[in-house]
Amino acid sequence: MITDPKSSKVRGVAKLNKKDARSETGLFLLEGPQGLKEAIARPELLVEVFVTAEAQERYQDLISNLDVPVQLVSESVMKVLSDTSTPQGTLAVCRQLDVSLDSVISAKPKLIALLANVRDPGNAGTVLRAADAAGADAVIFSQNSVDLYNTKLVRSTTGSIFHLPVVLGADLASTIASLKQADLQVFAATAGGDLITELDSVELRKPTVWMMGNEAWGFDDETLDLADRQVALPIYGRAESLNLATAASVCFYVTAMAQNS
Amino acid sequence: MITDPKSSKVRGVAKLNKKDARSETGLFLLEGPQGLKEAIARPELLVEVFVTAEAQERYQDLISNLDVPVQLVSESVMKVLSDTSTPQGTLAVCRQLDVSLDSVISAKPKLIALLANVRDPGNAGTVLRAADAAGADAVIFSQNSVDLYNTKLVRSTTGSIFHLPVVLGADLASTIASLKQADLQVFAATAGGDLITELDSVELRKPTVWMMGNEAWGFDDETLDLADRQVALPIYGRAESLNLATAASVCFYVTAMAQNS
Repeated sequence: MITDPKSSKVRGVAKLNKKDARSETGLFLLEGPQGLKEAIARPELLVEVFVTAEAQERYQDLISNLDVPVQLVSESVMKVLSDTSTPQGTLAVCRQLDVSLDSVISAKPKLIALLANVRDPGNAGTVLRAADAAGADAVIFSQNSVDLYNTKLVRSTTGSIFHLPVVLGADLASTIASLKQADLQVFAATAGGDLITELDSVELRKPTVWMMGNEAWGFDDETLDLADRQVALPIYGRAESLNLATAASVCFYVTAMAQNS
Repeated sequence: MITDPKSSKVRGVAKLNKKDARSETGLFLLEGPQGLKEAIARPELLVEVFVTAEAQERYQDLISNLDVPVQLVSESVMKVLSDTSTPQGTLAVCRQLDVSLDSVISAKPKLIALLANVRDPGNAGTVLRAADAAGADAVIFSQNSVDLYNTKLVRSTTGSIFHLPVVLGADLASTIASLKQADLQVFAATAGGDLITELDSVELRKPTVWMMGNEAWGFDDETLDLADRQVALPIYGRAESLNLATAASVCFYVTAMAQNS
């Protein structure tokens, strides 16, 4: 059992909570049993797993199914490894996945989520989870969006990070051009747009990219101009807007329900 | 200008970040200019406002429109008053609102959100904001749900807390009985339920209560039995579920879009 929170091993792993160390190593951290369960289906991505004694007992079936080294650690070591104040007792080191836009497009996608300058890890992770639930074929992160491998982001996907291809560091202009070329329509979700309830079902069912903008300022004009259409959710009450993840979820589901009806 | 973070005034206001002090005084804290803007429309609820010099200049129009005492405070005092590490520079003390189930029912509601044992303040606040956007007529918090006046919850509503009636401390059995009596159908949002896409439009358009359960364990059987129907969102991809606030938003919008179509 590793009990020294200051050992070089522990410090090395804990560093993966920082973007620099993730970029250097090509690794990231996956906290908690829920994500770990999903990671088992992608054994090529798992490197090693750290567990506390309590978690080892509690998640016995899960842990015994792992095909990678499992290292017992003390509670105090887990606190150092985790970025949360209440660690869930398991922490996996995983390899980063790299997917190209070409491979996404060649799979003839019907629904794609495109995050344009989304900065909050919790928001981005929840959007990724919602995209997965809605059956999206891929998620694309633009340049200047939050790092996909941010520990909080990974946690808030609850395993969806392993379920669908994610394209990283996309240049918005060239990416959107390629998506349009492949006959996807690009909707920018924005308060000033055409109401989604006024689109006809033929349009709603077309292969669609939902582009979500920055939490605070939305889109710059240049990015808006890249979209085929600006689309808004109706506000039936008095809220000024929805938050990013809830707006994205409704957009994805309206499209998915139309495409699957 | 108040500059002493340890003054009794400052400590008294900062205490409102705790539930006990809120219950004792009937007051709560509203952080940030966005919520304050909404509060101005409900002047009977505002007691006093604290601002930093920077915020006073930045939100000049907003601050000069206030009809209550405005107190300048130093940055270090604002840090003590606020529960966040990066305060937004304005903090209002507000009176709690008290709404009865009877008054909600007598307004002939078409859409109500019912939070049954929802515990996370960020989730609950985001659900309230989504309910407002979807035009819900009221939100009901059950006994054992998170305190509506939790500072983080209030902040995550971004002002929606002032937009629609909220009933607190509801006993689930008697509340649901009253809602059914008033010809509202009660849907429990739960993964095992009937798919929302299989409900016909007549049913979708009926006056509806969406009951959302606890983030971790959903509903107990007793509560599920109170609902008219268990309803699920389809999962088109591989996610096990949506998070509470995104699931709630999709449910509210599917109903609102059907009722308004």
